Order: sequence, then C-alpha cells, then structure tokens
Amino acid sequence: MNRASHTAGITSNRVEAFSDGVFSIAATLLVLQLHVPTQAEGDFGHALLSQWPSYASYVVSFMTIGIIWVNHHTLFANVRRVDRPLLLINLLLLLSVSTIPFPTALLGRYIGEGEPSHLAAAIYGIVMLSMSLSFTALWARVSRDARLDVARLNPRRPVLRSLAGLVAYTLGIALAFVSAEASLVVYGSVAIFYLLPPVRE
Amino acid sequence: MNRASHTAGITSNRVEAFSDGVFSIAATLLVLQLHVPTQAEGDFGHALLSQWPSYASYVVSFMTIGIIWVNHHTLFANVRRVDRPLLLINLLLLLSVSTIPFPTALLGRYIGEGEPSHLAAAIYGIVMLSMSLSFTALWARVSRDARLDVARLNPRRPVLRSLAGLVAYTLGIALAFVSAEASLVVYGSVAIFYLLPPVRE
Amino acid sequence: MNRASHTAGITSNRVEAFSDGVFSIAATLLVLQLHVPTQAEGDFGHALLSQWPSYASYVVSFMTIGIIWVNHHTLFANVRRVDRPLLLINLLLLLSVSTIPFPTALLGRYIGEGEPSHLAAAIYGIVMLSMSLSFTALWARVSRDARLDVARLNPRRPVLRSLAGLVAYTLGIALAFVSAEASLVVYGSVAIFYLLPPVRE
Amino acid sequence: MNRASHTAGITSNRVEAFSDGVFSIAATLLVLQLHVPTQAEGDFGHALLSQWPSYASYVVSFMTIGIIWVNHHTLFANVRRVDRPLLLINLLLLLSVSTIPFPTALLGRYIGEGEPSHLAAAIYGIVMLSMSLSFTALWARVSRDARLDVARLNPRRPVLRSLAGLVAYTLGIALAFVSAEASLVVYGSVAIFYLLPPVRE
Repeated sequence: MNRASHTAGITSNRVEAFSDGVFSIAATLLVLQLHVPTQAEGDFGHALLSQWPSYASYVVSFMTIGIIWVNHHTLFANVRRVDRPLLLINLLLLLSVSTIPFPTALLGRYIGEGEPSHLAAAIYGIVMLSMSLSFTALWARVSRDARLDVARLNPRRPVLRSLAGLVAYTLGIALAFVSAEASLVVYGSVAIFYLLPPVRE
Repeated sequence: MNRASHTAGITSNRVEAFSDGVFSIAATLLVLQLHVPTQAEGDFGHALLSQWPSYASYVVSFMTIGIIWVNHHTLFANVRRVDRPLLLINLLLLLSVSTIPFPTALLGRYIGEGEPSHLAAAIYGIVMLSMSLSFTALWARVSRDARLDVARLNPRRPVLRSLAGLVAYTLGIALAFVSAEASLVVYGSVAIFYLLPPVRE
Repeated sequence: MNRASHTAGITSNRVEAFSDGVFSIAATLLVLQLHVPTQAEGDFGHALLSQWPSYASYVVSFMTIGIIWVNHHTLFANVRRVDRPLLLINLLLLLSVSTIPFPTALLGRYIGEGEPSHLAAAIYGIVMLSMSLSFTALWARVSRDARLDVARLNPRRPVLRSLAGLVAYTLGIALAFVSAEASLVVYGSVAIFYLLPPVRE
Repeated sequence: MNRASHTAGITSNRVEAFSDGVFSIAATLLVLQLHVPTQAEGDFGHALLSQWPSYASYVVSFMTIGIIWVNHHTLFANVRRVDRPLLLINLLLLLSVSTIPFPTALLGRYIGEGEPSHLAAAIYGIVMLSMSLSFTALWARVSRDARLDVARLNPRRPVLRSLAGLVAYTLGIALAFVSAEASLVVYGSVAIFYLLPPVRE
C-alpha cells in the first residue's frame, strides 16, 4: 500500500461537503436560464409558452443532477479513505456536473430552431455522457480498491445500471442529429429509469 | 418490508445537506432579479422606487423559502431512514423551491403592467402551490410510514397547517385574475401565518 | 415557559447550516457585479481601471459579510435551543445579508456619477444598518433569554461593539449626502474595526 | 498566550463550512461565463467553437479551485483552534478564490484579441498569485503557532510546494505580456502539478 498516494486528512465527509455544494448549486443555477420576457416580445402568455423547451430541459437537468447526487452519496457512504486518484475522478465528475447549466441553456434556447437544435442536443448528451463516464470510473475505482468496504455495495449491479446510462446517452447523442426533441425524451427517460428502484433478485 | 426500495447509505442527514444547499441558494439567488437602473432610465431615485414590486416579491419569496426550510427541518429531524419514494417527493419539493426565483422575477417585473400582471401572479401562485403540495405529500408519506418515528410529531396538526397553505395559495391564484397586488398580499400573508407559532391546545 | 413557541427539532446546528449557506453565497455572488468590458468601451486597461468603485465596494461587502459570519458563529455556538422569535430575527438578518449584492452593485455603478452617487451610498448604508440592527436584536434576544447559556459570552461587550456598528453606519448614511466616497471609507472602516480583536480588560 | 486574540466558539469546523461554501460556489459560478450564442452571431457550431478560450479558462479555474479546496482541507484538518489572524488570512484567501470567476471571464473573453489579451492573462495570474500568497501565509501561520498540532503535517514540504505555485504564477504573469495562450498553459500546468502526489522520501 502506497502511503504517499494518500491525501492526509481528507475523509470522505469532506469530499461530500464540497460535492454537495457543487451538486446543489449547479441544480439551483439552472433557473437562471429561464428568461423573463420583455414587453417587446409581444403577448406575454405566448412568450412564456414559447419557452417550453427551456422548462423541459430545466426539469430534465434538475432531476438528473438530483439523481446523480443520490447515487454519489450511496457510493461515498461506503468509502472510508480518499486517495488522490479518487479525488481526481471526483473532480472530473463535479466538473461535468457544474457544466450542465450551459448545455441546458443551449438546448432550451435552440430546440425547434432547425440546424442548431441538433448540435445543441448532441452537446447536452456529450456532457451527460462524460458525467456518466466519470461516475462509472468512480465505481470502478471503488470496487477494485481492496481497502474500501464494497462488499455490501454489490458493485456489479450499480455498474450495470451505470452502463445503461452510458448506452442511453450515446443513443441520445446519435438521435440528436435526427431530432433534438427525441433526444431530450431519451435524456429524460434516463432520469426516470434511475428514479425507479433496482429490480429485486 | 421491501428492502429493495431502500436506498443504501442515504441517511436523512445527507438529504438535508443537499436540501439546505438548494434552499439557501434559491433564497440568495433572488437578489439577482433586483435591477441596477441604467442612466437611460432617467431619475435614479424614481427608477429605484418604481421597482417596488421587485422588492415586495423578493421579500415574500425570501421569507417563504426561509419558512419552508424551517418546516423541512422539523420534518426531517424525525426521519431515520430515507426510501426512494421519500427521495422522489423531496426532489419534487426542491424542484419547485429552486424554481421560485423565476416567478418572483416575473411578478416583480410585471405587477402594475395590466394584462400580464394577472398571469404573472397566477404563475407565482402555481409554483407556490406545487411546493405546498409536495410538502403535504412529504408529510403524508412520513405519517403513513410505520417505520418512521412520527409519534411525537403529531402529524395531524402540521397537515392542517399545510392545508391552510394549499387553500390560501389556491385563493391567491384565483385572485390573480382580479388583482396581482391583492394576490401578492395573500402570498405574503401565508408567510406571516407560518411565522406565527401554532395555536396551543 | 411557553412550550408551543418552541420549534420542534430545530437545533442551532440546523440554523447555522442554512445561515452558512446564505452568508457564503451572498459573499460569492458579489463577483457577478464585476463587469467584463465590451470592446465598444474603448481601451481595455482604462475600462478596467474606471471600474475601481466596483472593486472597492466588492472588497468592503465581502469582508463585511465574512465578519458578520464570524460573529454569527460566536453567537450561535452558545445557543442550545432555537425558538420562533430567534428564527424570525435570524431570517431578517439573513434577508439583509442576502440583499447586500444589490446595494453593492448600485454603489459600484454610481460612485462618481454625481447626484445618484449620494442615494446609492445611502442605500448601501441602510442595508448595512438593517443588518446591524438585526444582529443587535439577535444578541439582545440571546442575552435576555434565561434558557440560553450566555454567561461566558459577556453579552454587554458584544452589544457595545454592535452599537459602534450602528453609530458608524448611521454616520455613513449621513455622510452619503456629502460624499459617496467618504461614506464608503466609513463602511470599510467598520469592517476593519470588527477585524481587530476586542480591547482586553 | 493571549486569550483575547482567540475568537470564542469558532472551531475549525465552522471555518471549513463557510470556506466549503465559497469554494464550491465560486467553482460552480464559473459556468455562467459560458455564453449561449445569439442567432445574430451566425453559424451556431462556429460560434460555439470560437469560444474555446472560455472553455479552457473554465477548466483551468475549476480544477485550480478544486485543488486549493483539497489543500485547504489538508491544512484545516490539523487546526484545532482558530484565532483572529488565522481567520483574517483565511478571509483574504476566500476573497481571492471568490474573485476567480472575474479574471476567468476576462481571459475567456479576450484571449486572441491582441493587446487586451496580455492584460487579461496578467490579471488572471495576479488573482491566482494572491490566492497562492494567502495560502502560503496560512501555512506559515499554522506552522509557527506552537498551539497547533503541525508535527504530522511536515510543514516544510507543503511550503515548498506552495513556493512552486508562487514561482509558476509569477512566471505566468511575466509570460502574459508575450503570449496570453502560453500564460494560460502555465496556469493549467500548476493545476496538473498539484494534482500529482508529492514525491516520496
């Protein structure tokens, strides 16, 4: 066991405090993309309704962040000591989570706007996919590290569930070039899938 | 008891950390809707005063979020284990809380602007009502779940108090189509009502 | 002792978690008022330098929030149970703290702009004064409430120090109508005063 | 030992809660500088690609804040009591951290824009340098204060690592006047350097 690769004094509680901060702030900043119509935009009710893609991408992103947060806690509740590779993978996960408000704003702004809608939906999927990849890497790291108590986590199941996310986000990115709306439906379905309890044995 | 519906490792403390984040960020983001007048808007003092609806909706939303937060803690202080349905209802509550800055900005911008003021006040009430409904659902879930220690909470009283909120917000939405100002007074009164201690037996 | 006025399950830790959130977010949101010059504003270095009032008000507000936060903890470390009046006073304190980014932006934008500068500096002082008043009320409440362990706090001293803030902010508001710059110097001096340790007996 | 210079009731946990808040919010606010292209900007894909400096400065700033946060915890995990000088140095550190979104936006906006790019890169380095200086001062304070348990921290090593940051940021500021891009590469290298584990003895 390489002691130098341990980060003195960093317990999983500390990592969770910073992570909780990033998750909750990223989720709450999403609301800033909802736009107060100006009077120049004409009928107020119509202007509000025409923003429906912003509301849809807002809800999908909020629920996705909420669910990653739940899974993040499930994972860290079982981590006793944090080493540098784990910290780095976690920072990459938080980087993709904190980026989510940007593709959410892109998608909310450009769905239904023809050509740009495809690119916006693909970018949204790429950010979600990189988040999903970091999360899978975090699981893989935790399960191969004998120092960590993973026995009761049954890591194969969560990895399978993570893989479902990877596949679905990849599908969403491919679909983006056909229809941004269909792509957003796929991204939303991933959130609903993860909200459901795992199948019992 | 269905073990699969338990979320391993999620204690009520963890849910509170994320929830605290969303409550405090949503409350603090409200200030971003207060607008620094440009010089083109003419007299500075007049421009600041004409923003009074923004200040009023800011104060009502801030106090409302503060009070939901207090009640949220009262509830979670008595929850020992968190299951998936509870997490989902809590996420829906947080979604409506984190949305509050948007209708607050709409109402602050459009009160006193004729036709749009009615719609803005109704949307404000709808977001508050959905927050209130999620909160009532959270209470109902906690009180019907025999695993949770609710004896000392006397759940009927809080549910009655929650119902008062539901009725008042519904009244506010109806009033919105008569007068947005009257509607805002109702929303503010709900906050004041919840600040008062419950009637003693 | 009126048991009904107690808020079940709210410990001072919980109030501190929400308060910490509001303090740190209000402090960090201040940076959003610093403006990235557009190319239309001409020379980049000059455009950045001409924003000096924004930098000055940013630093004064950040340090002030940091100091209130320190004092808030000194106070709450000695509070065992939280009742409704205390919660309400604390919410009013947090309301004024979360408002600080607005007068900070006003002052940063309008110092050196003639007439509006006086009003902006006065509004800044009024928000600081209301924060200071809420804080004094919090101290007063803690010291008169026999249930709370205040013996080791020596409450008279902090109240005296709070009064110094009240007097200084009132002076700053009066000075605002002579010179916004002088007023900002007074507000900054309050922060420096509170950073210094109390005089020893 | 001067008891009056102690801040009653402030434990290192409390300082960490506020610091965690500032670190995570500053990191997450960075995303607000990423700009949703308007349709007037022409080709959507091109408009997104031309923002590459914003993405680069976003990633460098996010990783830098994440790493300072890790080091901050390593330090505070070993601090038992917090005195006023430590609080003041920590506030100065948090002030520079919370400022990071501003030079990040400046650099993201002005890299590749000729003359202004040099100044923007230098300002970015100055904020990073002042953060690095505050952090070194924090270490120095902790190691010279006999009341604090620093034995197991081996403070000389971290100070050496801090010095590496000071030198690199100074180099980056000098390089800024030659090439803003080269300067950003240096700033990013500092983040990568601190991600690597310390050399073993």
